[in-house]
Amino acid sequence: MNHPVIPLAQDLISRPSVTPADEGCQALMAKRLEKLGFTIESMIFEDTTNMWARRGTEGPVFCFAGHTDVVPTGDIAQWHTPPFDPVIIDGYLHGRGAADMKGSLAAMITATESFISDNPNHKGSIAFLITSDEEGPFINGTTRVIDTLEARNEKITWALVGEPSSTNKLGDIVKNGRRGSLTGNLVVKGIQGHVAYPHLADNPIHRVSPALAELSQMTWDNGNEFFPPTSFQIANINGGTGASNVIPGDVKLMFNFRYSTEVTADELVKRVLNILDAHGLDYGINWVYNGLPFLTDKGPLLDATKQAIVKVTGYETEPQTTGGTSDGRFIAPTGAEVIELGPVNATIHKINECVKVDDLIKLSDCYQQILTNLLSEEA
Amino acid sequence: MNHPVIPLAQDLISRPSVTPADEGCQALMAKRLEKLGFTIESMIFEDTTNMWARRGTEGPVFCFAGHTDVVPTGDIAQWHTPPFDPVIIDGYLHGRGAADMKGSLAAMITATESFISDNPNHKGSIAFLITSDEEGPFINGTTRVIDTLEARNEKITWALVGEPSSTNKLGDIVKNGRRGSLTGNLVVKGIQGHVAYPHLADNPIHRVSPALAELSQMTWDNGNEFFPPTSFQIANINGGTGASNVIPGDVKLMFNFRYSTEVTADELVKRVLNILDAHGLDYGINWVYNGLPFLTDKGPLLDATKQAIVKVTGYETEPQTTGGTSDGRFIAPTGAEVIELGPVNATIHKINECVKVDDLIKLSDCYQQILTNLLSEEA
Ligand SMILES: [Zn+2]
Ligand SMILES: [Zn+2]
Repeated sequence: MNHPVIPLAQDLISRPSVTPADEGCQALMAKRLEKLGFTIESMIFEDTTNMWARRGTEGPVFCFAGHTDVVPTGDIAQWHTPPFDPVIIDGYLHGRGAADMKGSLAAMITATESFISDNPNHKGSIAFLITSDEEGPFINGTTRVIDTLEARNEKITWALVGEPSSTNKLGDIVKNGRRGSLTGNLVVKGIQGHVAYPHLADNPIHRVSPALAELSQMTWDNGNEFFPPTSFQIANINGGTGASNVIPGDVKLMFNFRYSTEVTADELVKRVLNILDAHGLDYGINWVYNGLPFLTDKGPLLDATKQAIVKVTGYETEPQTTGGTSDGRFIAPTGAEVIELGPVNATIHKINECVKVDDLIKLSDCYQQILTNLLSEEA
Repeated sequence: MNHPVIPLAQDLISRPSVTPADEGCQALMAKRLEKLGFTIESMIFEDTTNMWARRGTEGPVFCFAGHTDVVPTGDIAQWHTPPFDPVIIDGYLHGRGAADMKGSLAAMITATESFISDNPNHKGSIAFLITSDEEGPFINGTTRVIDTLEARNEKITWALVGEPSSTNKLGDIVKNGRRGSLTGNLVVKGIQGHVAYPHLADNPIHRVSPALAELSQMTWDNGNEFFPPTSFQIANINGGTGASNVIPGDVKLMFNFRYSTEVTADELVKRVLNILDAHGLDYGINWVYNGLPFLTDKGPLLDATKQAIVKVTGYETEPQTTGGTSDGRFIAPTGAEVIELGPVNATIHKINECVKVDDLIKLSDCYQQILTNLLSEEA
């Protein structure tokens, strides 16, 4: 494996950067980028380390976006190899972050190095937006870097996020959008009492049950060409003192919508409130707007990505909008086109996370080809 | 206050016998009963102190039943007087256990002393069945004393339980039965997953909601002349990891029936299982049979009690079967008639528990009159 993406990925994986720690990963990347003529800005917000790096002053601005933090290892005893001691076994690089997303970060760097070597006077600008809290509360990461850029009117034209989008083989899937996410925290009130005196109490679990039955059976929309139908899931429900003879005074619920562009968050809020009111409930509710849905259904970035994947791999990619949220939700609202392309996600967030060595080389090649398609001297 | 019930009640209250502690209360009672010719048996089971005392070898057997343990004080700072330092203020005796049920225990002793003084050769037998775990798990208390008596074929004919049955004034209510209590612990299983991939998961909260709606709206029976309708209450529900993006793998519920003699526990179990099955749920359930319903709708004990109350107080009592469980549920299945008569229950289990001094004197008089009606030399 003489390709430079592998030793760089290993160097990143060997740093135990569990959210919000960065452990020098961004400094390592910055050192490589400085040599290429990038201007580096480190943006520390509270416990989170962020980096904004840019080469060039003109538009259009192509930006690699990603994160140096990783999720916790879980039970280390279950790992076949130490999670922060990257090793290659049978063609796979093992370690926490190998697939999500230190392999992608290494590929972004090596792709940029190759591209600039071929195109020292490329068009526009190349940028890196890297955070250390994508896996955490995402309060002091990408969203605050974007706020900073917006405040000085610095725009990203195209953002390529390195999240592991591939399902069975490298590049088979890219994400060209994400559903919105909306969380509700609901408290339904009753009157606490003793089970032997039910007429003096008002059981909130009994009261809320028909409303929950209705909410969980509701069709919110039918999705569209780009998005699956909006889904509603109750994630938590808790009521009661633990005793068998006490009717609880309230019951607490947390639910989450993943929603398409066929509805808005405000419409969902209104429909939920209507159902709660129709059931005559006494309740309090607060809403957390985790992210708006976004979609890049056409444009130069999607075209460049499709063309690069078919050129490197020989097969066509499929754009999808399924799955969880990503930091793309913070970049898209500025008007940027956003595509996510990264390695196969089968082992992410799991014990024995790993990535195929060949896939990281192909990923570096894809990233380089996308840069070439968009910003080469001849583009 | 020259009546001997008061100093005895104070002596008992001054002992901090929080369940399962007895703190010498039973020994104090035993000393008084031994002087009257009672045979005392102390029955210690695990952490629980019980006493069986009997005067006489013949039937019928009249038994005072009660408990020396009290519930915890709660926040002592909120008490106007120290909970284990009984004082009389404005005609009320204050302290933890004053109403539930050390006042009753004192009245049982003084009533027996007076009665035996008048009737040294009374008919039948007088007995005391006293435990120190009525307020606790009721595993090593009355139920085990009854097991011991049953094993040697020693029968109680009439049991008078000293639980605070009165609502507005002494003796206005007696309990002549109690509903049954049946608890179900239910786990409804689903498939855990990420809210972004609902098709790979199966939300147990969604699955169970329609069944809960049906269970909570069900009419189980309409009660009868003696019992209110059977009631069903969900006391606890818990599901979820706390995160907003995880569909839980299961949801746990605890519910409780208080049931009349119109249904049996087995019928209730069957009806619940039918509803769970009709909703196609994957579940596990276990049942706790807390006590069968019992009823003493006629007989010498009820007659003697009614007559005593009207004689002492001037008004008629009303027999009811409402309210929580009592240790009567362990005595009634042996074939005994069971009545509960005790002081006003407004302050039991609360901060600043207290009982009217006059009521304890009247209660002692009532108990003595019941003994007279049933066992006097002329009865
Ligand atoms: Zn990631
Ligand atoms: Zn009691």
